[in-house]
Amino acid sequence: MSFSPLVDRLLETLRVLPGVGPKTAQRMALHLLERDREGGHRLAEVMARALEEVGYCRRCRTLTEEEVCELCRSARRDERLLCVVESPADMLAIEDAGGYQGQYFVLHGHLSPLDGIGPEDIGLDQLASRLDEGGIEEVILATNPTVEGEATAHYIAAQLEGSEVRLSRLAYGVPMGGELEYVDGGTLSRAFNGRLPFSTE
Amino acid sequence: MSFSPLVDRLLETLRVLPGVGPKTAQRMALHLLERDREGGHRLAEVMARALEEVGYCRRCRTLTEEEVCELCRSARRDERLLCVVESPADMLAIEDAGGYQGQYFVLHGHLSPLDGIGPEDIGLDQLASRLDEGGIEEVILATNPTVEGEATAHYIAAQLEGSEVRLSRLAYGVPMGGELEYVDGGTLSRAFNGRLPFSTE
Repeated sequence: MSFSPLVDRLLETLRVLPGVGPKTAQRMALHLLERDREGGHRLAEVMARALEEVGYCRRCRTLTEEEVCELCRSARRDERLLCVVESPADMLAIEDAGGYQGQYFVLHGHLSPLDGIGPEDIGLDQLASRLDEGGIEEVILATNPTVEGEATAHYIAAQLEGSEVRLSRLAYGVPMGGELEYVDGGTLSRAFNGRLPFSTE
Repeated sequence: MSFSPLVDRLLETLRVLPGVGPKTAQRMALHLLERDREGGHRLAEVMARALEEVGYCRRCRTLTEEEVCELCRSARRDERLLCVVESPADMLAIEDAGGYQGQYFVLHGHLSPLDGIGPEDIGLDQLASRLDEGGIEEVILATNPTVEGEATAHYIAAQLEGSEVRLSRLAYGVPMGGELEYVDGGTLSRAFNGRLPFSTE
């Protein structure tokens, strides 16, 4: 059995949301229709507006409805540091961790020649011209520690060879609070290769 | 840190959906903005339309954008049977189980005097006039097996006293496929009190 055509269509369309299957879609649709029509109207409206208006920051390519995002406009960020991340969510995670005071550049993905995603698709031409403007002393490559993320980092590093910009990347090693027993082999050998002098400070 | 005001507003508004917390809202918003703007637009549009147009069936009060729902219009349903349920989801569960061929009446809730929900709020006046029309021989009370559901069933039964309509309710007992060991005491004693002659058919 099914509901009316329009309710069925709502159930089906709700499944564009990640992690929403048939049961969750039904719960969501009935919740909105039975208990919170006002909230649903607000959601539909805000969603349409955000999808219409939110684009990429002209400077760092993060999501924003403004021409240049707040972080890029902020006078309190160190303009000599540029952190390259794959997605706005990564940028948010780094900001939430605190400590980093520089600026960002968001790739919105990684190089993936098989999927037809080349350097221009992830804004590397824009990154190059940003570096050409001068003022940036260090680029921190914070792509994901995956094969594709590493490949992208290496590609960017190769592009920057010969320039005066210092290149760095996030440290790889055992995560804090974990137990060595459960750390995977790849991470463990990275942590061994990258071992540091013990400091008692 | 936060995203731009409009993205933040989307994150916040997505939480009107049941079961969606801050992390899920972020994943949904970024998915729509980064990967599926078209799907998002479709969702916003269908959601707005459904919330605008879907109302209650004039006959059975289920959700439908039509005046009278498909099930009520169907000539293949037994008009002598009327099953009273608390929500459209309950109606769907019964339909999916198969077997029942009668019609429905949806209360959209249960009596709850403390919350100011009285007989009229759950359509009992409408139920009464539907029964007055005649033609219905049996009313099956399929409210939830909770205190409120039971109270609502009793209230409806009291209202129908003296009428010629036969009243029944769903059988209570141990659920199929379960293990007795894990069935709660209340259900077990119900199953004992309602025990039936063993049939070898």
